[in-house]
Amino acid sequence: MASADPIPPTVAWSDGAVRLVDQRRLPDELAFAECGTVGELVAAIRDLTVRGAPALGAAGAFGVALAATSGATEADVRDAAAALRDARPTAVNLAWGVDEVLDAWQVGGADAALARAHAIAAADVAANRALGAHGAALLPPMASVLTHCNAGALACVGYGTALGVIRAAHERGQVVTVWVDETRPVLQGARLTAWELGRLGIPYRVIVDAAAGSVFAAGAVDAVIVGADRIAANGDVANKIGTYPLAVLAHAHGVPFYVAAPTTTVDRATPTGADIPIELRADAEVAGPPGARVLPAGAAVHNPAFDVTPARLVAALITERGIVHDPDATSIAALFA
Amino acid sequence: MASADPIPPTVAWSDGAVRLVDQRRLPDELAFAECGTVGELVAAIRDLTVRGAPALGAAGAFGVALAATSGATEADVRDAAAALRDARPTAVNLAWGVDEVLDAWQVGGADAALARAHAIAAADVAANRALGAHGAALLPPMASVLTHCNAGALACVGYGTALGVIRAAHERGQVVTVWVDETRPVLQGARLTAWELGRLGIPYRVIVDAAAGSVFAAGAVDAVIVGADRIAANGDVANKIGTYPLAVLAHAHGVPFYVAAPTTTVDRATPTGADIPIELRADAEVAGPPGARVLPAGAAVHNPAFDVTPARLVAALITERGIVHDPDATSIAALFA
Repeated sequence: MASADPIPPTVAWSDGAVRLVDQRRLPDELAFAECGTVGELVAAIRDLTVRGAPALGAAGAFGVALAATSGATEADVRDAAAALRDARPTAVNLAWGVDEVLDAWQVGGADAALARAHAIAAADVAANRALGAHGAALLPPMASVLTHCNAGALACVGYGTALGVIRAAHERGQVVTVWVDETRPVLQGARLTAWELGRLGIPYRVIVDAAAGSVFAAGAVDAVIVGADRIAANGDVANKIGTYPLAVLAHAHGVPFYVAAPTTTVDRATPTGADIPIELRADAEVAGPPGARVLPAGAAVHNPAFDVTPARLVAALITERGIVHDPDATSIAALFA
Repeated sequence: MASADPIPPTVAWSDGAVRLVDQRRLPDELAFAECGTVGELVAAIRDLTVRGAPALGAAGAFGVALAATSGATEADVRDAAAALRDARPTAVNLAWGVDEVLDAWQVGGADAALARAHAIAAADVAANRALGAHGAALLPPMASVLTHCNAGALACVGYGTALGVIRAAHERGQVVTVWVDETRPVLQGARLTAWELGRLGIPYRVIVDAAAGSVFAAGAVDAVIVGADRIAANGDVANKIGTYPLAVLAHAHGVPFYVAAPTTTVDRATPTGADIPIELRADAEVAGPPGARVLPAGAAVHNPAFDVTPARLVAALITERGIVHDPDATSIAALFA
């Protein structure tokens, strides 16, 4: 593409710091957060300044490079890696990015660490363009697609996974319209996916998450495409809370449910979805911020950040290496053969 | 019950005005709105000061009584009835309450109209206590129940429909805990159902609507109980947006899905769910209020207030006249025989 990308890199290296698109300030403002220390970066990961499995992979990678290039001791670099790896438990890419750069640093020192982080970031965009092209071929010439959360450029270094497929179809001239789940509690769909689609000129309508059922019932969904935070070896998919109900609805309505993710999101060391740790986040995300609290005082909340969709509900896994139809342990292992 | 009800009547007649619990101010404050004119009452119905099908029935009834007792002309009373009937399109109880009192007024004048409105309000609470007792018998001694929106005392004149079943089970000594869907976009679950359950001392946890899937997957739901805005002659149920996905999830997990509603919510003149008008509400409910908007400028929204659950997904209809298992046109007709 000759034209400039309308969405800047989500995670980048900038003058000895990690520069993040500050996703908490979207859609009001496109602003950046500069993390000059690993502590600042860990805080930014925890508070969702940066989120999305592939973006977390790059953030973890640049985070280790940040420690390695700042003259830290060997113990400090290892501590930094551990802190980054533990910042969020579900997305496997975070630990993967950290470990890749840690390995490079052990072999080749700080310069090798930074080079590996840059390579991970570049590979992310390339993988998303490749999986986008594979996935676009699955969509009919006119497609109404439903997506959840944000699996766009903002969830990656660039281009996007689920939105990468939609974007690739749009770039090829296919007519794609998008139902955007708002995605409570943090509203990544309403705030981020709507913003990206607007920038890309792709038509969309935002719905509350619970309205997806009526959109399916109206026959207005041709495919569901979501991203993933971790894919188990058997094809079970952990993704943003609310993904599993969409897979059940898609199944009930005979609509294909696709998961778009780079192969770095597959965790071959995790046998099934039951083995994926699910992050429980703060009640305040549901209860509302101070001053705008919606719940009665003392109300109890249950706030899991992710759910698990069993592989049997996944029509295809869309990766940079190609499409895995009806994913299972065998077909996923073949992806790595 | 000798003890005072911890929740005051949602709709009442008070010194020549219709007094409503102002549901927009809950859970922060238990406040009342006094509607001295039909215009004020129509506005209160539209802006959700009062909502819930049975409560709307009583509001419509008292609204016609308000016009009839205020010395209005015959044409004015008829105009008032029409305005009330049209204030919200989906809940059949509203038109039913209006027409009942209009009939009484035609036969017996203003006094008869007011007497009929009072009778409707009293019958609502009695029906809910009766359906609550019927429904409680469907629940095991220890039950984890999931509910959506608010089908409690606040959706009726008192006691509640879906929450009436839960409350009746609690009063009988059954151990009931409740998963409360927050119910975007207006958050009736988070604001109203949580408030009621707190007042009643029934344990609950609030979840985002999209988290219901993971709660089902964890095996933590024994039954779903919801209310209804309109039940078609064939048993299809219109209820708050997000009800249908719960019915699909319940079916996928072998969990019974119950609808609790007085028989006044059955519209025998509506053959199927496809014939029920579904209200589309303002984008701002999803986009956020001025100053707290979450969507990008210009974002398109689709905001249906209700969805339709086909009768085949309803394990039983719980009414004041008894339980209708596997409801269909025949069994529903038998309810009225």
